[in-house]
Amino acid sequence: MADNIELWESLGMDLETHDMLCSVLPQAFGDVFLSQENRPEGMAFWDAVTADIHGIRAHELVAAQAEGRKVFGTFCVYVPDEIVIACNGIVTGLCGGSQFWVPDGEKVLPANLCPLIKASVGARLGRTCPYFRIADMYVGENTCDGKKKAYEILGQDVPMHIMDIPQMKRPKDYKAWEQEIAEFAKVVEEVTGVELTVDNLNRAIKIVNDKRRALARVYDARKNPDVIPISGVDALLMTQIAFFDDPERCAQMCNNLADELEQRVADGVSVFPAGTKRLMITGTPLAIPNWKLHHIIETSGAAVVCEEMCTGTRYFENLVDETQTTLEGQFEALSNRYMGNNCACFTPNTAHRDDILRLAKEYQVDGIINANLKFCTIYDVEARETERILEEAGYPVLHIETDYTDNDAEQLRTRIGAFVEMLG
Amino acid sequence: MADNIELWESLGMDLETHDMLCSVLPQAFGDVFLSQENRPEGMAFWDAVTADIHGIRAHELVAAQAEGRKVFGTFCVYVPDEIVIACNGIVTGLCGGSQFWVPDGEKVLPANLCPLIKASVGARLGRTCPYFRIADMYVGENTCDGKKKAYEILGQDVPMHIMDIPQMKRPKDYKAWEQEIAEFAKVVEEVTGVELTVDNLNRAIKIVNDKRRALARVYDARKNPDVIPISGVDALLMTQIAFFDDPERCAQMCNNLADELEQRVADGVSVFPAGTKRLMITGTPLAIPNWKLHHIIETSGAAVVCEEMCTGTRYFENLVDETQTTLEGQFEALSNRYMGNNCACFTPNTAHRDDILRLAKEYQVDGIINANLKFCTIYDVEARETERILEEAGYPVLHIETDYTDNDAEQLRTRIGAFVEMLG
Repeated sequence: MADNIELWESLGMDLETHDMLCSVLPQAFGDVFLSQENRPEGMAFWDAVTADIHGIRAHELVAAQAEGRKVFGTFCVYVPDEIVIACNGIVTGLCGGSQFWVPDGEKVLPANLCPLIKASVGARLGRTCPYFRIADMYVGENTCDGKKKAYEILGQDVPMHIMDIPQMKRPKDYKAWEQEIAEFAKVVEEVTGVELTVDNLNRAIKIVNDKRRALARVYDARKNPDVIPISGVDALLMTQIAFFDDPERCAQMCNNLADELEQRVADGVSVFPAGTKRLMITGTPLAIPNWKLHHIIETSGAAVVCEEMCTGTRYFENLVDETQTTLEGQFEALSNRYMGNNCACFTPNTAHRDDILRLAKEYQVDGIINANLKFCTIYDVEARETERILEEAGYPVLHIETDYTDNDAEQLRTRIGAFVEMLG
Repeated sequence: MADNIELWESLGMDLETHDMLCSVLPQAFGDVFLSQENRPEGMAFWDAVTADIHGIRAHELVAAQAEGRKVFGTFCVYVPDEIVIACNGIVTGLCGGSQFWVPDGEKVLPANLCPLIKASVGARLGRTCPYFRIADMYVGENTCDGKKKAYEILGQDVPMHIMDIPQMKRPKDYKAWEQEIAEFAKVVEEVTGVELTVDNLNRAIKIVNDKRRALARVYDARKNPDVIPISGVDALLMTQIAFFDDPERCAQMCNNLADELEQRVADGVSVFPAGTKRLMITGTPLAIPNWKLHHIIETSGAAVVCEEMCTGTRYFENLVDETQTTLEGQFEALSNRYMGNNCACFTPNTAHRDDILRLAKEYQVDGIINANLKFCTIYDVEARETERILEEAGYPVLHIETDYTDNDAEQLRTRIGAFVEMLG
């Protein structure tokens, strides 16, 4: 801990305010995670990381910087980590999942904006997130109006590179994203001083694909209709931390966990009683430490078996082709993989509905909670059609709009409890 | 009137509901416009058009369709009218400026969405706007999340073409918009059956430029520091109707009005007492019949002398180069003109602030009202920086967030009154 304080001080953080955050997290973590029974042993890794969420990894990043490596902070699953990793850089997620940061964000942003963006900007401007302090560069993407415009405020404070993601999915849009990736590569080469080559990029593609395969193995273990080997909130924590962790260690830890979960499935070891209703959550991302919905659902008699979210399937589904032998071919392969992702930022976006329906079947869910962070326009407008299609396919759906506060916790508990009961 | 009812019936409109709209507009129009003193005679044209806002022009459009011409409905100042006009098509604005349409929009859209979008969708789905009924095709543009996603709902109902506007302003983004224009041209050729040529496009460019020049003349007459020859709300009405009118007639009427205003300036004929404070409004568009802010301001002792808005300077500033001799050159010229427009949809967007500062000087304003339609994220996020820069330049600024309801009218009157008084 003394080590941490020294580190945070050297990063110019607001220690006094940050202390307040540090003092509430253990209690929240204990309430949500440690109160669960029969957790997989593999979760010990993520418990340890979370217990020191602004310490362990921050130390590693600073040590890497001392060796000349560069750190890139990202906001979104569309930024191709592969490019950074190929150039010996490191990608880190940036804080944005707690109400703690929202008031600092609201000093410069409208209140009518999604909490994720307000929290991110607040974490940066309030100097209460080490990852925002450490990053040598932030990489933004224009996935929504709120982020796109918030970059103008963040950009006054830090070096930023913005990738302009197309808002449609015509063939030329794939090409445009490929070009954005090629331009991003030039920027990364400049910042890192490392030349991008077919070899180092293919190695990086393999590293990130391995991480995706490992995350997918954990998710696959959640598809079994009879045994639920891991709680939703534990799986969510694994995915949340994946945004911050070293990708090779992440893959290893996820594979270890997957081994254990596969054994549990074989042995019939479930963390929920037989007959527990299986729910999928779809919608806006749940950044760490946003565990609110999972916790309420899983203490209301149901289990979350899939997250169709950026902090979920969108993060690891689809692999990048590993067989390309030219940078152009690799950029195209990267574009194909990332544009294959179905964020609500695209129009039209019927493939997103196809994903949700497919996943509902694959994970054999009894119902779906479509969760929207307040003021997230893109998901909010899609919600009605998504829910109509799901109901048409026979799935009960509960629409939830929420933010990072606890003000609606009791109301949510009542609504979710009623929904679960209705599932029968 | 009997004529109108027949027309509206033939368009499949909801006559009963539409009657309610028709019955309140005359009173509103009388209160806001006819109560003014010493109005320019030239306004008689716009008074007549507004008195029959869903009749006269709707009849013209239907008559044109009977002759085989096609009508394109648009939502935004970024869609290049020139292409449509060149192919003998007609462009019309689409309804979206009244609270009347909002409840129908909220049936399918989130309440947390800007009233302009909710009203547009409501006007279409509620079948209470003839222009939405008449249009052979709607042309959308991805300027904001709300519209972009709302097109998915509208698109279930009507033929739509969507132009993907870049969200940045790098050289390649100008190129990308040029390509979108070229693709739009193909669509317009197909729908109209008319081939686009250098000649018909240059003729159309000239027509629309002439309209811009005429609108600019009216605006120029508002720059005189001593004489205010036209009220802001009259100028606003002229601009609002310009979105719906035939462009050549629009230019002629605006030029007539400009003649009169220039004479008034020469003669020292002002519609406001000497010393009336000069205000600029900047922000989100004010679609017809949204006259709320202008009316409150101009019955609170101040005059509006400029609208830095899509329903204002953004609609007519910058001309398209008229000297191109190839379609490619013309597309490039169109892209340069339209991308030169500074909507808040771009990031970064410092040129928008430059525009506002420049216009504040040109129109010699005493203060600025920065008006934001509720839930318009892009303008809302920019507002703080815009206001900071204006205040730094010595301009008093009042920030207003409002919608289409009258719920806040008294509060606005109090705030605006205090602001005007403060100007001294």
